Formats: sequence, C-alpha cells, structure tokens
Amino acid sequence: MKVGVFDSGIGGLTVVKSLLEHQLFEEIIYFGDTARVPYGSKDKNTIIRYAIEAVEFFKNFQLDMIIVACNSVSAYALAEMQESAHCPVIGVVEAGVLATQNALEKKDANILILGTNATINSKAYENGLKNLDFQNLQAKATPLFVSLVEEEIFDGAIVEATLQHYFHKLSHPDALILGCTHFPLLATSFQNYFGKETKLIHSGDAIVEYLERTFDFPTKQTHPSLQFFASENPEALRLIAKKWLNV
Amino acid sequence: MKVGVFDSGIGGLTVVKSLLEHQLFEEIIYFGDTARVPYGSKDKNTIIRYAIEAVEFFKNFQLDMIIVACNSVSAYALAEMQESAHCPVIGVVEAGVLATQNALEKKDANILILGTNATINSKAYENGLKNLDFQNLQAKATPLFVSLVEEEIFDGAIVEATLQHYFHKLSHPDALILGCTHFPLLATSFQNYFGKETKLIHSGDAIVEYLERTFDFPTKQTHPSLQFFASENPEALRLIAKKWLNV
Repeated sequence: MKVGVFDSGIGGLTVVKSLLEHQLFEEIIYFGDTARVPYGSKDKNTIIRYAIEAVEFFKNFQLDMIIVACNSVSAYALAEMQESAHCPVIGVVEAGVLATQNALEKKDANILILGTNATINSKAYENGLKNLDFQNLQAKATPLFVSLVEEEIFDGAIVEATLQHYFHKLSHPDALILGCTHFPLLATSFQNYFGKETKLIHSGDAIVEYLERTFDFPTKQTHPSLQFFASENPEALRLIAKKWLNV
Repeated sequence: MKVGVFDSGIGGLTVVKSLLEHQLFEEIIYFGDTARVPYGSKDKNTIIRYAIEAVEFFKNFQLDMIIVACNSVSAYALAEMQESAHCPVIGVVEAGVLATQNALEKKDANILILGTNATINSKAYENGLKNLDFQNLQAKATPLFVSLVEEEIFDGAIVEATLQHYFHKLSHPDALILGCTHFPLLATSFQNYFGKETKLIHSGDAIVEYLERTFDFPTKQTHPSLQFFASENPEALRLIAKKWLNV
C-alpha cells in the first residue's frame, strides 16, 4: 500500500517513524508545508485552504490512503480533505481519541489534552472523548513546546520552567494526550514531570493502532520506499528525516 | 506624510509605537502578514516573494514612504522592495546599524546582535557594522524569545532560563541590538540580565532617529490616521494594536 503523510512541517516525521517501525507500507510520500508552518496559530479557514492544497498535491501520486499527521489540520480540515480526496483520509485526532480509550480502564479517568492553540480551540479531542463518555477532561494550549522542539531543546532548565508555567495549577492526569506531532520528542520530560503512572498518548502509535484495527496489512514491508517533499527547503527536511528516522 | 509599515506579523507595532510617540506621520497604514508569520525561519527566496507582495498591496495607497519593520525582511529583501516600490523603502537594519554607531563612543565596543535565524544568517547587521569599522561583534539567533513574546511572557522563570541558555557563554556587551521587532517587549529582562551599562538598540527608536536625520517633518502630527491590515484575522491584530498602542 502507498500512503501520503501530510504535516504542516517536520513534526509529522514522528508519525512516519511509527509507520516505519511497524512496517505497514510499501511506499510513504511525505509532504511538509514548511513554507507556511506553523499552522497551529492560524485560523480555521486558512488551515482548510492549505489542507485542500495538500490533497491536490497528493493527486500526483496514486495513493491508497492519506494520513494527516498534523493535529491542527485533523481538528479543522479532515472532512474537507475527505471530500476532495480520492482515497481514505485518516487524522491523528480520531486515532488519538480511540487510543486514549484503549489505554484507560475507567470512564472517570483524568485526561489532559495538550496541543497548539488551533487544536485546543477546536475542541476536537474533547468532543471525541465526550462522545465516548469521558468527562474528566482538561485541555491546555502549550505552543512554547513547539518552539522548544524546533530548537532541539528536549530537557533542561527551560523545559522545566515551561512545564511549571503551564501545569503548576493542573492536577496530574491519568492520560496525557500529546496532541501535536512535536510533543513526542519531549516525552521523557513529560513522563518525569507527571510521574510514571501517567499514560502518554502518542499520535504515531495511535495511528498505527488505528490502521491495524481498520485495514488489512497482509505482509510486513521491510524495505519501504520513502519520498520527502516540502514547500520550502526540502533539503533541510530530508536532513532532519535522516537524523530522526535513521534512513 | 503617509507611511506604510510592513511586518510579518504583530511585532512591527513596536515600530508604530515609536512613530506615534514622535508624531511624525499624518497617516500610518500597517500591514502584517499574519497568515504567513513567522518569516524568521523561512528562506531568502520565500521572504523576497512575500515582501514584493507587500509592496504590491501598498500600491493601493498613495504612500510617501514604506518602512520595513521586520528585521528578516530588511535583511533579505530591501533591495527588491526598493526596486518594485514607487516610494522610498526604509529598513530597520540600516537604521539600527546607524543608531548603534551613534550610541557608542569607541570602535572596539563589544556589540551583541540578536535576531531570528533568518536575520542572523543574513549577517546584515554584522556587514553594516563592519563597514563602519566595528569589529568586536557577536551574533546570536534567539528564536525562543519570539515565541515567549507571542505568549505574552515577558519575564519570570522561563525568560530567566532562556537568557541563561542563550547567553551564559557570551561576554556582556556594550551594546545589545534587539534585531527583531518582538524583542523590545523583553527590554527590561535584557537590561536586568546584562546590567544597566549595556545600551539597548531598539528598531522603533532607531527608525525615528534615522527618519528625523534624513527627512523634513515640518509639523507634529498630533492626530494621525491609523489603518491596520492583516492577511489573516485582522480583528485580532486590531485588538493587539489597541492594547499595545493605546489607540
């Protein structure tokens, strides 16, 4: 199977990493809209417009599926993408909601949702979880973590101060939804801050879990073909992909 | 006189604030490219393309002058903007370089230049200062400060940790160039960190100094007309303008 992975920038590579580890696809075409990143501070109409342009780009390939790695796009533009695409379009938000349900035993579990301003304002995770009868929800926009990851700062004093800034008033959660593709790179710092009882929900793993439940993957793809496209500076994207994915 | 002020987002409002304080213009037209902010992480060609689009936008008005408040644009696209505009185009970098010269007594003064990745990579400030025989230069890309200002975090533990992160290895400067329109909002924190001997060079004040030396402003404009345009969510820009500028 041939999949397109769309993200606003480089963050979606964390989803590609999960897809590679589970050897699901023969071909992965990645498109990062690096010229217009970040999407998380943009408004709904702009995000929808950019998302539909990405669908058009993917029409250059004969894809079996599009995965939307970007939480902000999944939250705002999934229906519009599904309408204009010729193949299934799967978003990390719906996958993350189901993974959260699978990770928790009790409906009164305390769930903390993190994301960009766009993702949190959309209430996409909250609405999804409420539909599954989870009610004990907290949501917090944490855009500084995006900047820290882009600076490749994953721990240390700034991360500590930022964790403190965002979370000192919040009760420690049973599950922490990393509702932005950048956040898995801070997973160790989140886990240390909240303690090992907190279950971290990672978009990449959630997507894999969702795909394996929904589609048939008869054979493991041990030597997938990978192509990386970017709307600006594709060489920089390929360098980061090499580093993060060991490809 | 009627001036257009161009910035990638909201940061250029710090320049408008200086223009208003000095009552130089009858009319100020501000354009923030909020749909595509930030520019500081984009490459040269993209910045030039966006800058020329801004010039085209300003052709809707009969302007006497365009001020480029964005350091990244001033560093990369000033010549291209000057070529396509029908009026003088003035950038904060050239003004900042001259203001630095005026603030310092000795050519061996230690100057620290801060900016986005784009501004620092351009070496625009360094080249300008070297042409004026300043040689004792340090330059540092500090993109996290942009994110902090956008979160309206101007002091406290995260700012302290970020100052420490960027500057613990650098010697304290005689002059600190705030080479990004966001940074004046952190001026107090910079001054406290480096001590009161360090002179802060602020783009807004530098532009005013430059304009007053270069052009005639025969009468004070006590009731200037202000118009704010944004490529996305102009209402949000106008709210911030109200707050920051008291207009």
